[in-house]
Amino acid sequence: MIATPQLAHFASPLPPLQLACGAVLQQYDLAYESYGTLNADKSNAVLICHALNASHHVAGTYEGQAESEGWWDSMIGPGKSVDTNQFFVIGVNNLGSCFGSTGPLSIDLETGKPYGADFPLVTVEDWVDSQARLLDFLGIDTLAAVMGGSLGGMQALSWSIRYPQRVQHVVVIAAAPNLSAQNIAFNEVARQAIMTDPDFHDGNYARKNTVPKNGLAVARMVGHITYISDDQMETKFGRGLREGKKFSFAPEFQIESYLRYQGEKFSQYYDANTYLRVTKALDYFDPAADCGGDLAKALSPAVAKFLIISFTTDWRFSPARSREMVKALLDDKKNVTYVEVDAPHGHDAFLLNNAQYHAVIKTYFTRQILSSNRTAQEVAA
Amino acid sequence: MIATPQLAHFASPLPPLQLACGAVLQQYDLAYESYGTLNADKSNAVLICHALNASHHVAGTYEGQAESEGWWDSMIGPGKSVDTNQFFVIGVNNLGSCFGSTGPLSIDLETGKPYGADFPLVTVEDWVDSQARLLDFLGIDTLAAVMGGSLGGMQALSWSIRYPQRVQHVVVIAAAPNLSAQNIAFNEVARQAIMTDPDFHDGNYARKNTVPKNGLAVARMVGHITYISDDQMETKFGRGLREGKKFSFAPEFQIESYLRYQGEKFSQYYDANTYLRVTKALDYFDPAADCGGDLAKALSPAVAKFLIISFTTDWRFSPARSREMVKALLDDKKNVTYVEVDAPHGHDAFLLNNAQYHAVIKTYFTRQILSSNRTAQEVAA
Repeated sequence: MIATPQLAHFASPLPPLQLACGAVLQQYDLAYESYGTLNADKSNAVLICHALNASHHVAGTYEGQAESEGWWDSMIGPGKSVDTNQFFVIGVNNLGSCFGSTGPLSIDLETGKPYGADFPLVTVEDWVDSQARLLDFLGIDTLAAVMGGSLGGMQALSWSIRYPQRVQHVVVIAAAPNLSAQNIAFNEVARQAIMTDPDFHDGNYARKNTVPKNGLAVARMVGHITYISDDQMETKFGRGLREGKKFSFAPEFQIESYLRYQGEKFSQYYDANTYLRVTKALDYFDPAADCGGDLAKALSPAVAKFLIISFTTDWRFSPARSREMVKALLDDKKNVTYVEVDAPHGHDAFLLNNAQYHAVIKTYFTRQILSSNRTAQEVAA
Repeated sequence: MIATPQLAHFASPLPPLQLACGAVLQQYDLAYESYGTLNADKSNAVLICHALNASHHVAGTYEGQAESEGWWDSMIGPGKSVDTNQFFVIGVNNLGSCFGSTGPLSIDLETGKPYGADFPLVTVEDWVDSQARLLDFLGIDTLAAVMGGSLGGMQALSWSIRYPQRVQHVVVIAAAPNLSAQNIAFNEVARQAIMTDPDFHDGNYARKNTVPKNGLAVARMVGHITYISDDQMETKFGRGLREGKKFSFAPEFQIESYLRYQGEKFSQYYDANTYLRVTKALDYFDPAADCGGDLAKALSPAVAKFLIISFTTDWRFSPARSREMVKALLDDKKNVTYVEVDAPHGHDAFLLNNAQYHAVIKTYFTRQILSSNRTAQEVAA
């Protein structure tokens, strides 16, 4: 499947985008891709929300670039669990990101310079609002489903509250209704690593022609530890040495060189200001907060049906966090399916090709979404 | 109880100290303290081994400094669980530390400059060897007990293998027989934070009159997360904000300011070269490695009796890791007592005043150590 990135530009006479922080974006771009064909009554659209370091390039490859596989290509495509022969699937890059949508690396048209540190803080709710504008742009009123893992799952959850009439099914994978103190703590360590890097220059490193690479690498390393289960790390690396003890601080254990490689690679393609903003959006997300901590109350506007999936060894957003969402939805007497998938991979499992997991998604999309769509069409006919 | 730090100097004609890395220390100092009185037959000595950031100042306070309480003062003192009215307790600062024993901040007498990056890497076994030299210096042949928590527990375990005839009881608290891949990963993140700080200067920051404070602070922050249980962090901080959302990167959540404070404080008193060496000593510790991974075989030389203690919510060195040691000792038909203490505090519990934990230690020291000592004296008489 060949994917083609596209850009939607939002500017006057469209209304500006009001952000939660108080700032207003007068104009902005959203990079997106789509796979499959929108049907005549526009009832088969599925929006995919991305997590921390991903983008709108969800599935397929770019023309002539066999290596450029989308980050959820194992899940989405012709005949796959989310079948692009049946669904019109949309991937969108979030505002504040560094892969095409307007963000800190973009030129602020009012100043003629990159936003850098001046790009406002964005929230999950801001992203959802901008995604709704993209649907308007595409002429889509209602989504058959919105789906995401981790931070993407939080956006899917927010959709059900913010635009209840515009989404029929919400698929929330490996997510949480908010971050725990420990989750915030890890994010703060990552931010401190970036912000204390002397090449950070208070976020205006682009003007100095530098990049806080060391800070970004350490941030990625600490994040990476939380994406993998303890057992999986033990199975993959254990106490294995590359060449034997050297009594030096060069990478000796395999896990050390793996982490350094991951950090180094990440620091070459990801933007530090984006990292700060995305982790902050994670920290802030807490729909129950506006309802005195009552998640059921926060979710009460939802009319969608829900599929919630967690993974047994995920210690970043454990199954217990998913069960909080399930409990709140059940308290609200919502329609919810919950599956706890037995997987050894930790949080990363949501990105991997696990047979049970993919079968659950495939079944849900076929039996629940497609068949309810058909019933609706029959009723309409 | 007033404590008085002392310094033991080791130099020719005493033999030099051969380190595992191949380096040799021709002369070195060990800072130590002692509490209580050594009895006539020198049978009541207890050696306390310290963990990452602690020192020889284990108990009591310094004259005129009420705030200067030793790090295990809740455990050790007159009438306490380790009763200094009964035992002669010794605290010793490890080689390579920054609190008095010879380490990277010390002057290398051969060059007249601080060792800095040239101070050799030291291992748990090196520390145990140097502690044995301190016992020789103090005229003590056999310890009634050697005891430590975390990295201190690893030293206690090593004593039982390296000097089996010199130790009667070994108390290993909140420790592990080696580090997991995840443990090593966290250490490596901390080291990378330090080593990529531009003020690190390849470890020779003292010559540049700088200190890699930012790196040290981040290292401490990441370490700190692993010392506390997820639940405890949630109970203490949760998602509490200091003053409400500011949409900035200043510390907003209470957990953020707590971690920044801990990092900042640590960076003011701890030496970066020491941090690197202590984490590396942790990574390297693996007594089973010399026996093809067979811990029971590694522990087979031990003749001491063992008390092993773990804490239910410790996720740095979980109870499962303590049970590995217990299992190996039982396979060897050694005398071992194992207690899994129900405590909410995570790894930090070993430093805290938990009634069950302290009662276990008190009972063991009274019933097992003191009474076996008395029996031995009666037999001798």
